[in-house]
Amino acid sequence: MSKQITPTVLVGKKPVMSYVLACLTGFQTGSSDIIVKARGRAISRAVDVVQIVKNRFISNLTIKDIRLGTEQITDEQNRTLNVSTIEIVIGQG
Amino acid sequence: MSKQITPTVLVGKKPVMSYVLACLTGFQTGSSDIIVKARGRAISRAVDVVQIVKNRFISNLTIKDIRLGTEQITDEQNRTLNVSTIEIVIGQG
Repeated sequence: MSKQITPTVLVGKKPVMSYVLACLTGFQTGSSDIIVKARGRAISRAVDVVQIVKNRFISNLTIKDIRLGTEQITDEQNRTLNVSTIEIVIGQG
Repeated sequence: MSKQITPTVLVGKKPVMSYVLACLTGFQTGSSDIIVKARGRAISRAVDVVQIVKNRFISNLTIKDIRLGTEQITDEQNRTLNVSTIEIVIGQG
């Protein structure tokens, strides 16, 4: 049983359209699903990416799963911070 | 057939803990489910709210549904902007 690895688009501080393009490229090269992932303040941008892909480019896009989580990050002063994460699994058709 | 109305906590620019408190108060006053809603940049704060309620206060919290959407907003210069939205339905037990 081989399982295809789902490519992940990690959303950060670049303009929204660069992540939209990454998603479109992923679908173009044969991925059936893509995971759009983000942490902290980039979470709202990840939602923007998914909505733009859906509303402007792939009308039959389905949101298959949305997972929320928390990651612990250690900053330069050695403090532990909790950062929220989101993973949105999108698929075509 | 009467259906209970699910209270909504609309997340905006206030500190995260005020929305966490609003959720806890909602559960305390007998709501089984609460909708945590946000638009635009507040989306990441809405995820923070849900994660804090879950990790620090209500360990048996379940995320029942997450809905993404787009709303059209007209700004002062009469331009139409698309703003992403999120609705996270949380419940106890």
